[in-house]
Amino acid sequence: MNNTLTALLGTELPLIQAPMAGAQGAALAIAVSNAGGLGSLPGAMLTPEALRTELTTLSGGTQRPWNVNFFCHTSPVPDAAQEALWREALAPLYAEAGLDMSAVPAGAGRVPFSHAVADVIEPFRPPVVSFHFGLPAPDLLARVKSWGSVVLSSATTVDEARWLVAHGADAVIAQGLEAGGHRGHFLSHDLSAQMGSLALLPQIVAAVKVPVIAAGGIADAAGVAAAMALGAAGVQVGTAYLCCPEASTSALHRSALQSDVARHTALTNVFTGRPARGIVNRAMRELGPLSLAAPAFPLATAAMAPLRAHFEAQGCGDFSPLWAGQNTSGCRALPAAQVTGALAQGFA
Amino acid sequence: MNNTLTALLGTELPLIQAPMAGAQGAALAIAVSNAGGLGSLPGAMLTPEALRTELTTLSGGTQRPWNVNFFCHTSPVPDAAQEALWREALAPLYAEAGLDMSAVPAGAGRVPFSHAVADVIEPFRPPVVSFHFGLPAPDLLARVKSWGSVVLSSATTVDEARWLVAHGADAVIAQGLEAGGHRGHFLSHDLSAQMGSLALLPQIVAAVKVPVIAAGGIADAAGVAAAMALGAAGVQVGTAYLCCPEASTSALHRSALQSDVARHTALTNVFTGRPARGIVNRAMRELGPLSLAAPAFPLATAAMAPLRAHFEAQGCGDFSPLWAGQNTSGCRALPAAQVTGALAQGFA
Repeated sequence: MNNTLTALLGTELPLIQAPMAGAQGAALAIAVSNAGGLGSLPGAMLTPEALRTELTTLSGGTQRPWNVNFFCHTSPVPDAAQEALWREALAPLYAEAGLDMSAVPAGAGRVPFSHAVADVIEPFRPPVVSFHFGLPAPDLLARVKSWGSVVLSSATTVDEARWLVAHGADAVIAQGLEAGGHRGHFLSHDLSAQMGSLALLPQIVAAVKVPVIAAGGIADAAGVAAAMALGAAGVQVGTAYLCCPEASTSALHRSALQSDVARHTALTNVFTGRPARGIVNRAMRELGPLSLAAPAFPLATAAMAPLRAHFEAQGCGDFSPLWAGQNTSGCRALPAAQVTGALAQGFA
Repeated sequence: MNNTLTALLGTELPLIQAPMAGAQGAALAIAVSNAGGLGSLPGAMLTPEALRTELTTLSGGTQRPWNVNFFCHTSPVPDAAQEALWREALAPLYAEAGLDMSAVPAGAGRVPFSHAVADVIEPFRPPVVSFHFGLPAPDLLARVKSWGSVVLSSATTVDEARWLVAHGADAVIAQGLEAGGHRGHFLSHDLSAQMGSLALLPQIVAAVKVPVIAAGGIADAAGVAAAMALGAAGVQVGTAYLCCPEASTSALHRSALQSDVARHTALTNVFTGRPARGIVNRAMRELGPLSLAAPAFPLATAAMAPLRAHFEAQGCGDFSPLWAGQNTSGCRALPAAQVTGALAQGFA
């Protein structure tokens, strides 16, 4: 299968394994790249040291192209009143769990892509760098492109697709509402503007001249074929890789993905402060799924972490982000190469 | 194109024109049926007399199969407190328009399918009857089936698809979140359970043994091909027919559909009390899009009607339901036969 996307990425298949922070590292990316797709390393939650280690493993584990992904959000200004509101919402749960709220550190987690992060990745000259929540500032983006990295980013609306192309994206990922994990919207935060893949994809294809990659709801070869019929140059698939042995998905998460509860996902901001799609659990039911009390991304994470740890220690995923797309029917405990091969049948 | 759906419906094409109450009558249905698809007459908003007239026109206008559609909601118990809340929400708009709230009649509009309605349609022995919001009670459904009518209904979740088949539907319409007009959900009113077509369709196909019809987001031959790749036995298309000369879509609605504002639709209950997808306008922005003040379906309609009429008289669609799906790219002022022919290319 040769097309504009394989030409751009240098891959055998126009198939990208979606970066899934918290559920995978270099191992999954290596397996997918070696199987002919584009494996992706999620960089957003890694410390500089961990990022360097993972990139060393990844670049040493495959001779083929790979991708590293970062978030491009604006770091929030901490808001004491908002944080107090959030802690008040969580207080009954802390009491139930016997946890001490005063021990929770303020702030936390994911930092946006920066020159400091670029310093870490520069020696590796990533073949592909993908971004979520827009693109980095022009000087930073120019630096990434100066290494020869191909640059991708996600669009959730036609306007975002046009913006990304105007600001230098080499290809656009059309992220349909079905997709698991964080929504990539960055121009408007009105969730009603988010579209299903069947509507979004052809409208983005019609609006931009760069290759468009379909993401959201694709779980098998039929989904791949459908996306290609709609004019996609390729696909990005995440959820279907979550149960592969090469992923680091927790046992709780794997179990939820392969059960009937996975059929009900929702967009929630209670885990990070930003809307992301996950399997509905107690945290989403009792606190959201969309909470006005949650601090700005990624500040909501800090006070949720002790609850998550407490319940996970009891084998309970009620306060864990169980990220998943709306189509978990492709989740199987099979090697990533096999999942990739099955998806590739959709290009035939 | 012969398959399980054309065999069931007796049509040349596995293509259904979606019934669109308020935007079309027999003329559009006749044009689509004569072009080889299944034309649909929306019956939900018609008086018995108007229904009889339309059915006479429809059955006299084509020798080919046609469909008539009804709603199966439970009639709401009027709630004075809720109605007062709604009128309070609308009061500033009435004041702006110089309208008199006390002149608004209580109750209104759409009645669910009943034996009285069945009395009207029985002489016409409709080849196909489709329902929205579930199915009628068993005795009423048995009566419809006794005439030989094929029965269809919409599912918005896998559970609803299974329910419809268990209760007698001959085929299931998988209504993706992209679809315009009223959502067909009837088992759960939790909108987070609603899925995009790319995720919903293959999961329903895997769950039931009857033919599955894809609806939502399909605007052209590529969309048809995508739906068929996902295992659909056929498609139902609405939005792409709204600008046909045979439709009765208002000039305001046509103009909105063919402009950039059509790219932002949302689910709203402010026009009828039940979530439906329309182009975002002032009523949706200021009252909703989802309002807790709106009375149960279809009671919200009564107090909105004078506002709608007032603004429409000024050439303004700010308080009109501008129903549309998330993909209006197929809306062209072309004869329905031509739209049908273009969509049919997707079966090739």
